[in-house]
Amino acid sequence: MSTPLQNDLYLRALNREETPRTPVWVMRQAGRYLPEYLKVRKQAGDFMTLCSTPDLACEVTLQPIDRFNLDAAILFSDILTIPDAMGLGLHFETGEGPKFSNPVRTAADVEKLPVPDPAQSLQYVMDAVSTIRRELNGRVPLIGFSGSPWTLATYMVEGGGSKDFSKVKGMLFSEPALLHKMLDKTAQSVISYLNAQVESGAQALMVFDTWGGVLSPANYREFSLRYMQQIVDGLTREADGRKVPVVLFTKNGGQWLDIMADTGCDGLGVDWTTDLADARARTGGKVALQGNLDPSVLYGSPESIRAQVKTVLDSYGSGPGHVFNLGHGIHQFVNPEHLGVMVEAVREQSAR
Amino acid sequence: MSTPLQNDLYLRALNREETPRTPVWVMRQAGRYLPEYLKVRKQAGDFMTLCSTPDLACEVTLQPIDRFNLDAAILFSDILTIPDAMGLGLHFETGEGPKFSNPVRTAADVEKLPVPDPAQSLQYVMDAVSTIRRELNGRVPLIGFSGSPWTLATYMVEGGGSKDFSKVKGMLFSEPALLHKMLDKTAQSVISYLNAQVESGAQALMVFDTWGGVLSPANYREFSLRYMQQIVDGLTREADGRKVPVVLFTKNGGQWLDIMADTGCDGLGVDWTTDLADARARTGGKVALQGNLDPSVLYGSPESIRAQVKTVLDSYGSGPGHVFNLGHGIHQFVNPEHLGVMVEAVREQSAR
Repeated sequence: MSTPLQNDLYLRALNREETPRTPVWVMRQAGRYLPEYLKVRKQAGDFMTLCSTPDLACEVTLQPIDRFNLDAAILFSDILTIPDAMGLGLHFETGEGPKFSNPVRTAADVEKLPVPDPAQSLQYVMDAVSTIRRELNGRVPLIGFSGSPWTLATYMVEGGGSKDFSKVKGMLFSEPALLHKMLDKTAQSVISYLNAQVESGAQALMVFDTWGGVLSPANYREFSLRYMQQIVDGLTREADGRKVPVVLFTKNGGQWLDIMADTGCDGLGVDWTTDLADARARTGGKVALQGNLDPSVLYGSPESIRAQVKTVLDSYGSGPGHVFNLGHGIHQFVNPEHLGVMVEAVREQSAR
Repeated sequence: MSTPLQNDLYLRALNREETPRTPVWVMRQAGRYLPEYLKVRKQAGDFMTLCSTPDLACEVTLQPIDRFNLDAAILFSDILTIPDAMGLGLHFETGEGPKFSNPVRTAADVEKLPVPDPAQSLQYVMDAVSTIRRELNGRVPLIGFSGSPWTLATYMVEGGGSKDFSKVKGMLFSEPALLHKMLDKTAQSVISYLNAQVESGAQALMVFDTWGGVLSPANYREFSLRYMQQIVDGLTREADGRKVPVVLFTKNGGQWLDIMADTGCDGLGVDWTTDLADARARTGGKVALQGNLDPSVLYGSPESIRAQVKTVLDSYGSGPGHVFNLGHGIHQFVNPEHLGVMVEAVREQSAR
């Protein structure tokens, strides 16, 4: 029997239940803008050691909870753990971001891609989840996550980050059946990975579709949304007698919120290029909404931060179903005190 | 008296008049994907010498017209000519893109910004326009262009390209009045620059708002669209007894097409993340639409290029007012023959 949750505002908001104020957490809340994170990061030596050492991953996951008293914790990990477990050879080159030694380019490459067993090559993630869950001790819920199949495929085919996605789009346009096969294997891998996270203690799940917004509407439906639908349909949606909500987030996907809501997910992440009022109108109360302060607001003065928080809360308007967040991950060079100003402003201004 | 236009399909389509087929041109059609461009670029030595030598700028402008028989030529230049003429010290660092030696950060910096006289520091652009117009000899219309004030401001404040726009957004949120002053001076500069291009021979104008899509809807209206409105209101809209159409293009601005159309411009550029059918419905026939093939389609096979061209033409549907283009500039590593396949497909499939 697990420790009862002391603060379940986040889960209730995702369930569109009334809450005394709007819950708040921040994408990439455990990260390089925090001096205490940089210290542990240095101690770990490299990024993947930090991800794969459960005690260290737990320590950095809890840092922003301790500092800002946020309403949810999110597993400290990377979206590229799955392709790494598939044998692609993830490594990080200084100043160049993630790279894969064995990118997926041919039919033979796709054929030999395994669907990793989370209890094998991804057990370190599950250990991190259970460690964090234990150390949180019921303070706030723990969010597990994965990249979307399309987003993972961009890295797997390009062999790393990309500006124009020439290789994966070349495959999309010239060999769509091959890409579909790869996306299906990746979706199966994501499903077992996220279900294992729930089994290890994750109380909510988020799917990050960072690169869905570089597709045309038709290609988005066919190559990204379709596989997020497969995931939503395949996930464990309940644990410990409580619903495990699922949130989908497509960066630059503001035009597709309606079809995303139709997947049957519980919430949608919204970036700052869409007004929450519009997002709410277009999703017709089917889902909760998470967002959507421009992360760059945190470069402004405390006064302007408070004003912009108000704009976001007012844009959502009254009624339940709002989780306050940035519209994307917090930037590396933000002053942590500015995030404190934001969190305080959300608490004060949203009190009902 | 200028030479009569032999092919005015582009101008007629922007005026939403019937045409026997859909005209086609391509953003960055004079560029690095063409071996003949690379030859002249090498001869010039550096990029700004190429821009500022009218005969060379003319030569590269005409190369894609000669090779692909496109329906419009666009001045070969750079959007950063205006900030350079304002004294910011434009230079290009290898592999790092454009940089300014004197970025604009303080009230004093903004105060001393001049509104450049195009007949002085930008005369080289006007010489390029008149040279190109003469050498085109009426084959197709010549498009002049500028960056939008917001887009120029991002480079002017950041001192070059940026990933998160921390400095210009810091100014936006903390010192909005200062940013407005800078945007107003920039808009005045763009107006006199574009009007001088028309006087020198430009027959249509395009305003590139490359970075408007990184703003929230409210900030887009206040800091980008407002100054494009000022430009539309201040432009010469007729020359040689013929309308000079104005096209606005905000990359990732699909959600704002309706308010962009309300500026009174003649056409809108649309990127590939919005269906032309939707764009058409939301702009209610007020404007022509330019776009919107995903530039990455050109990495695919000739067969898939033809199929995707059909999808774009079908999405626009019947009736006048469509100018075929990519949804963004052509990529550097595209095979030029694939662009030829695209142009041929547009000509064949759109014939009425």
